[in-house]
Amino acid sequence: MIGTGHGPGGPLSALGLGELRERHSAKWREYPPEVLPMWVAEMDTPLAEPIAAALREAVARGDTGYAVACGLPEAFAAFAARRFGWHTDPAAIRLVPDVMAGIIEVLHLVTAPGDRVVVNTPAYPPYFYWLPRIGREVVQSPLALGPDGYRLDLAALERDFAAGAAAFLLCNPHNPTGLVLTEEELRAVAALASRYGVRVVSDEIHAPLVYAGARHVPFPSLDDPAAARSVALVSASKAWNLAGLKAALAVPGPEARRDLAAIAAEVSESSGMFGVLASEAAFTAGEPWLDALMAGLNANRALLGDLLAERLPGVGYQPPQATYLAWLDLRALGLGDDPAEWFLRRGSVALYSGLKFGAPGRGFARFNFATPPDLLTDAIARMASSLDGRARTPRPTALDAL
Amino acid sequence: MIGTGHGPGGPLSALGLGELRERHSAKWREYPPEVLPMWVAEMDTPLAEPIAAALREAVARGDTGYAVACGLPEAFAAFAARRFGWHTDPAAIRLVPDVMAGIIEVLHLVTAPGDRVVVNTPAYPPYFYWLPRIGREVVQSPLALGPDGYRLDLAALERDFAAGAAAFLLCNPHNPTGLVLTEEELRAVAALASRYGVRVVSDEIHAPLVYAGARHVPFPSLDDPAAARSVALVSASKAWNLAGLKAALAVPGPEARRDLAAIAAEVSESSGMFGVLASEAAFTAGEPWLDALMAGLNANRALLGDLLAERLPGVGYQPPQATYLAWLDLRALGLGDDPAEWFLRRGSVALYSGLKFGAPGRGFARFNFATPPDLLTDAIARMASSLDGRARTPRPTALDAL
Ligand SMILES: Cc1ncc(COP(=O)(O)O)c(C=O)c1O
Ligand SMILES: Cc1ncc(COP(=O)(O)O)c(C=O)c1O
Repeated sequence: MIGTGHGPGGPLSALGLGELRERHSAKWREYPPEVLPMWVAEMDTPLAEPIAAALREAVARGDTGYAVACGLPEAFAAFAARRFGWHTDPAAIRLVPDVMAGIIEVLHLVTAPGDRVVVNTPAYPPYFYWLPRIGREVVQSPLALGPDGYRLDLAALERDFAAGAAAFLLCNPHNPTGLVLTEEELRAVAALASRYGVRVVSDEIHAPLVYAGARHVPFPSLDDPAAARSVALVSASKAWNLAGLKAALAVPGPEARRDLAAIAAEVSESSGMFGVLASEAAFTAGEPWLDALMAGLNANRALLGDLLAERLPGVGYQPPQATYLAWLDLRALGLGDDPAEWFLRRGSVALYSGLKFGAPGRGFARFNFATPPDLLTDAIARMASSLDGRARTPRPTALDAL
Repeated sequence: MIGTGHGPGGPLSALGLGELRERHSAKWREYPPEVLPMWVAEMDTPLAEPIAAALREAVARGDTGYAVACGLPEAFAAFAARRFGWHTDPAAIRLVPDVMAGIIEVLHLVTAPGDRVVVNTPAYPPYFYWLPRIGREVVQSPLALGPDGYRLDLAALERDFAAGAAAFLLCNPHNPTGLVLTEEELRAVAALASRYGVRVVSDEIHAPLVYAGARHVPFPSLDDPAAARSVALVSASKAWNLAGLKAALAVPGPEARRDLAAIAAEVSESSGMFGVLASEAAFTAGEPWLDALMAGLNANRALLGDLLAERLPGVGYQPPQATYLAWLDLRALGLGDDPAEWFLRRGSVALYSGLKFGAPGRGFARFNFATPPDLLTDAIARMASSLDGRARTPRPTALDAL
């Protein structure tokens, strides 16, 4: 825990509910204060000290003008080399405002209106808004759900590529399932993409958040023609909780450099200056904090399993290989298609409704466990109690206005 | 100057060149250090203290998650009531990442692909990138240039509306000319818009920056059907130098509320959390600083006139009625279509090339005078000396790599 500045419990034990409720971000403002928010992918951690220091200096300098990439591409490239053994040329990396905007930017450049873009479902909900927004059709290619959790379904992927897809929006590590694809699986994806002429855009926002036992392989790092033509989107925003500062990077494989060079300056300039500075600090000096975070997340990942087994034994939960997101199978509880709605109204816990993740999300919900252990425990207790009282009519609350 | 925290010279005299060069923003990083940057619309001022305090508190809270609008709509509505006498309902105001994104969002909702959108030229350059990007055609409707500077050309506007325009992207106060339309002119625009069924989207980003002698009239505040259906885009980003923090607002006229309600949550959530917090502080507690800034800008506006008359008498300059931008008519200098290129290479001063502002920009350039008076003086001296040495061949510099 050395160098994290948050004491022996690490960043996940540094803040209490009172402090968290003072926050202005979506996690803490979207629902009334009686609700415990476990939905959006923000973390209940303080900033890593190198990031806080960089931001305080930026405030002192009044450095709030238009963003340029500064040393961020170099900082990411050095981090990727240390952490993933990926050697990528910072000169080819482009700044974008966030990962979602970067995905849209790349799809805008490498596909055409009306094109079909494959995504593995369940899928990060905003894909379903932004892809149609630029006239690209989302093709849902479900992951396979077996007794050991989710796996890539290569046969389904081949079927969807063969039906005429222009691009595959790979999400690895995967939100919401926490699946981390192996190098072999990624090679198989690349082979299929080559065979069917499909461009791969790889959303690797959760790459720094892989637990021991799995390994992140950046898609563009593979020695394969489809990988060489792919683009990865990366960011410090999930691992260091910087989503509101607005900076991410598009990182090309060797044959996609020219495509990325076509990203307009206007796009990079709409990124956030503080996002650039914070992300540069994160990738450069944020690893001790990240390691402490991962220890805390790993403990929470196990605690969640224990709590569910004890209090909500009907719930299906496979500890994720990466991310602080748990994809809960709530179908056995008999709460219908949208159990998140039940837990919000009857348990005052906000989960992310599975219905937003595509067809396989019925009866599921996403639970964010990047929270202090006592809040995690309280959330599961609330969920369990709401089921004890299942027969009772809910009392009216501020939620009725939502 | 009370309450600004920057001493008697106000915010424009608080920082020296050494401090400014430490900044990481576009103004200070786009060109090599020997160049004086007078191009992009950032200001060489420290942050207003209420904004710096809000940001320091946000860093201490670790409040870096996804943005929600918080009290920003209310803060803007109160500011607009005090400053412009405009009473607008905060409940109808929507958060967007920046003014440009807000314009695109509104045009996306109120026009269709292939539609023609009129802009007055010279025009803010990114309009020419972003409108075609969503399939809208930019129709250039030139302002009229007379001996007293630029004026709205209502006959040209009517001609362009009559030719079949879906929307008018009004820019008032106007970048780059600093023109502020009168209430009568705005009423005439509204009447034309009503007659030809044209939707008005009003870019009012420079509204807080109007000098004594002119008055800002928010377009949606007019009592007119076309005004009622209009949407204004506003922001604290120009007046308090917050462009890199990413927050702006879309403010509807009474009949455009429903259109704005259709802006997706995904769009607002891609705004910057620190932009929201800084902007709220600006609109709530930033007026003393703004008044001190305006005094300094007013002095610079006059100083620029004096310096040009003395050192570059061939240059056409009409002091702007608003903004810290001077639209310089450099045609008499005999430097060709792009005098900014000359002054960059021969004078080491970066202006914003007039060519980027549409057809009327040939031979013009934009000069940003929101800079300490000594840097303003130095910039004009460099420009003047570059002309003395007109016959000399330039020595090679780091600029050749640009
Ligand atoms: C898989 C995935 N992609 C993209 C995003 C969005 O990232 P950003 O906020 O940088 O757009 C998220 C956020 O949680 C995510 O989980
Ligand atoms: C007229 C005008 N509109 C829009 C913008 C861009 O504002 P934003 O950075 O909020 O997109 C500017 C910036 O200078 C501007 O002058």
